[in-house]
Amino acid sequence: MEIKINRKSKIALYIQIENQIKNMIYSKILPKNYILPSERQLANTLKVNRSTIIKAYEELKEKGLIDSNARRGTYISFYDNHEENDHKKYLFWDEIYSKSSNNNFDNTITKIMNTDINSKMISFGGGMPSPDLFPQLEFQKIQIDLLKNEAKNMFFQSPVSGNKDLKNEIKKLMLNREVRISTSDIIVTSGSQQGLDLVVRTFVNYNDVILVENPTFFGAIQLLQTLGAKIISIPMDKCGMKVDVLEYLINEFNPKFIYTIPNFQNPTGITMSLERRYDLIKISEKYGIPIIEDDPYGELRYEGNYLPPLKALDKSGYVIYLSTFSKVISLGLRVGWIAAPERVIAKLSLFKQLTDLHVNTLSQHIVCEFLRQGYYKKHVKKIRKSYSLKRDLMSEKLTSNIRSIKFFKPEGGFYIWCKLPDNICLKSLLKRSLKNGVNYVTGDSFYIKKDEKGNFIRLNFTYPKNEEIIKGIKLLQLSISEII
Amino acid sequence: MEIKINRKSKIALYIQIENQIKNMIYSKILPKNYILPSERQLANTLKVNRSTIIKAYEELKEKGLIDSNARRGTYISFYDNHEENDHKKYLFWDEIYSKSSNNNFDNTITKIMNTDINSKMISFGGGMPSPDLFPQLEFQKIQIDLLKNEAKNMFFQSPVSGNKDLKNEIKKLMLNREVRISTSDIIVTSGSQQGLDLVVRTFVNYNDVILVENPTFFGAIQLLQTLGAKIISIPMDKCGMKVDVLEYLINEFNPKFIYTIPNFQNPTGITMSLERRYDLIKISEKYGIPIIEDDPYGELRYEGNYLPPLKALDKSGYVIYLSTFSKVISLGLRVGWIAAPERVIAKLSLFKQLTDLHVNTLSQHIVCEFLRQGYYKKHVKKIRKSYSLKRDLMSEKLTSNIRSIKFFKPEGGFYIWCKLPDNICLKSLLKRSLKNGVNYVTGDSFYIKKDEKGNFIRLNFTYPKNEEIIKGIKLLQLSISEII
Repeated sequence: MEIKINRKSKIALYIQIENQIKNMIYSKILPKNYILPSERQLANTLKVNRSTIIKAYEELKEKGLIDSNARRGTYISFYDNHEENDHKKYLFWDEIYSKSSNNNFDNTITKIMNTDINSKMISFGGGMPSPDLFPQLEFQKIQIDLLKNEAKNMFFQSPVSGNKDLKNEIKKLMLNREVRISTSDIIVTSGSQQGLDLVVRTFVNYNDVILVENPTFFGAIQLLQTLGAKIISIPMDKCGMKVDVLEYLINEFNPKFIYTIPNFQNPTGITMSLERRYDLIKISEKYGIPIIEDDPYGELRYEGNYLPPLKALDKSGYVIYLSTFSKVISLGLRVGWIAAPERVIAKLSLFKQLTDLHVNTLSQHIVCEFLRQGYYKKHVKKIRKSYSLKRDLMSEKLTSNIRSIKFFKPEGGFYIWCKLPDNICLKSLLKRSLKNGVNYVTGDSFYIKKDEKGNFIRLNFTYPKNEEIIKGIKLLQLSISEII
Repeated sequence: MEIKINRKSKIALYIQIENQIKNMIYSKILPKNYILPSERQLANTLKVNRSTIIKAYEELKEKGLIDSNARRGTYISFYDNHEENDHKKYLFWDEIYSKSSNNNFDNTITKIMNTDINSKMISFGGGMPSPDLFPQLEFQKIQIDLLKNEAKNMFFQSPVSGNKDLKNEIKKLMLNREVRISTSDIIVTSGSQQGLDLVVRTFVNYNDVILVENPTFFGAIQLLQTLGAKIISIPMDKCGMKVDVLEYLINEFNPKFIYTIPNFQNPTGITMSLERRYDLIKISEKYGIPIIEDDPYGELRYEGNYLPPLKALDKSGYVIYLSTFSKVISLGLRVGWIAAPERVIAKLSLFKQLTDLHVNTLSQHIVCEFLRQGYYKKHVKKIRKSYSLKRDLMSEKLTSNIRSIKFFKPEGGFYIWCKLPDNICLKSLLKRSLKNGVNYVTGDSFYIKKDEKGNFIRLNFTYPKNEEIIKGIKLLQLSISEII
């Protein structure tokens, strides 16, 4: 019996062993009643831990393929009495996944999307807008109008790069953000996540270097890692990424692009200063390196001066700008956009058509009307006010309830990034907190190197109700005191 | 002046040359008034055609970077008077696209999605359902109910693998197709196109071999080529793919999977016989190779006996089944699904979360209600009747108007696949037809090797109105007679 193991594979050793034995059983290389080497023997031969062999054998036992007793040891108990099976080769799905698929195993986002809206758990976890602020009445009105006057159009295919009227509204919205573009510089995407996916597929080859702020949004980290990019992180201070280090890293690593969230960064809440923005643009121009500017929260400033996005400062057309309606209107709509030079949009569109043809027509029409009829502006005003209060409430409760925690109050966005004392174990605290009924995301998910965490947790203040914020922070305090 | 050209690159030679000269100009390696080599000289040095150099120089002239006169020849006329530009490196987007992006240049689908619904052009081009049969009233009713009773739920995020109730309805739909699965064997996708994209990303590495029917759906060909797969084609006869050749190809090429459209194949309209289906499953089991079964048209049978999908015959769980509501209800909704073993669905879901989190909530709810309230069944019955008549009408008009054309009447689906006499040039005919006001897709798009076309055109009969079918076939006949 010959087993080969691959220590570089992402497939666990015990599964590799299990699969190979399984294959030998199915293919009759090992006949019924064949006696397998003992666990210790095989562990020695393969130079693996004995527990690995124990686990492999256990799995095979559970599947009814092998059995063991004191007299004979472990032997093959499977006998295939279907004649047709003589000609079968067992298919091991685990062994045929693509390289990128094997890099892809983090399901943090899946867990957040599964947030049960009726659960009693208080959630500071996801990056979701408040359900109480959904523009329900406005949407009802819009949909009823659309159904009355344009029902047929709701069913048609849309252009790959998006509905023309919607792109025109986005163009106006961008003008409010001081960015002057034409509709051919825009592609509508299924949220920012798809925007990033399209950009990455269009530009990134295996082993390309991407520079990102440290820490940064885990959805970006995961996507880049899945596609085999090398992520190098740029340290930040309270004014955003350190541009001097950036320049050093560019010279050192020749990156494909720089990914940044300049406004109310996820997770830190840091906003890049105007000076840094100019510096960053200058560096991008000096080295001819494009910037991916991710701006889901830009509209949600609760205090301080408005700052123009990088895209507004970019005279050379080196910035690819991503934004979305997910944080301002609703995540369920799946409507976002990319603004970039026309030739880049054309290239991105080729991937969009291969990926899913276009964003669903109904959502595009609804968002378009929401913008066109002026509801958007009023809605942003309304949620700014409410979120600002929620942010203040959470800050205040954190300060008064949990003295050992350190944080700064962000000028906008969705999150408060809290540093815990070093003696608190993040893992134990999360376990205890979940038990006590409050959920959040631990800081390590936002770092490239998992060991480089600084004992942070990210708390979202937009989704929970006010009373949940009050109660949730108390529960967090309780959980801390219970594990210290 | 040193220029390096890469003949393996997808970037046209003249652009490579243009870009390198541009870079030398911007970076001041070539100063103002520097005299470039003559076109002939440079062509000789680089061993390219003279016209390539002419084109490169023309582009540089148009951009105001170089100029020429009889006395001096071609010289650099650009002078950068902005001091800041001294430190700029020009960014050439074309040079930083990813490998897969450079494989991605076919915009057939984009053109089809841009089909203008108000155009006077008669379209036999896309694979779209008839706009006259959209279940408009039913959708109005459903939406109004949803807005009344569940407005809030419409805004929420959905689980990555899809809304539970919708998955439950799809499970029942699959039971009608003789496939017994649980909801955890299902993931909801943004149409079949995304289904295929997720499958390809999950399984295919650069240079993996995929077997497909020849000809086959161009969206699949393009996606596979973009991701660097090697596509090998399996010949077909009137019963579907030739399984004896398939077995030979498997032994020869060790493929990752087999992609097939067993029902009313796109573009040929061929339906795989029951015997072949059993044979195909047997081969898949014998070699342990998964089958990707693409079934967008399965419900749309107009005559002959119902045949079970491969998934229904698959006892080993080797079939990944893709389907969609795009062809039966509406393309604009972007709702489809994949049915596969639970562990494969879990892997596909990891890509779904990275790609766009989930299918938009509103579309999922609408389709769910459409199924739940029994509208779907009635709707399928209705469109089957109408499409069957359209198919008959188009066949009849083809037979009576264009004697030189050969085709067979498909038992279902969306397309008639017509063979033209060898003396007709596909390109000239399409040009002439567009001029005369009728559109369709030429057969060469559906072949892996573009030279292997058999002079076919694909005509869609579901989208045009009856009177457009009559007129369109006449215009096609006119176009043929004009170019012979």
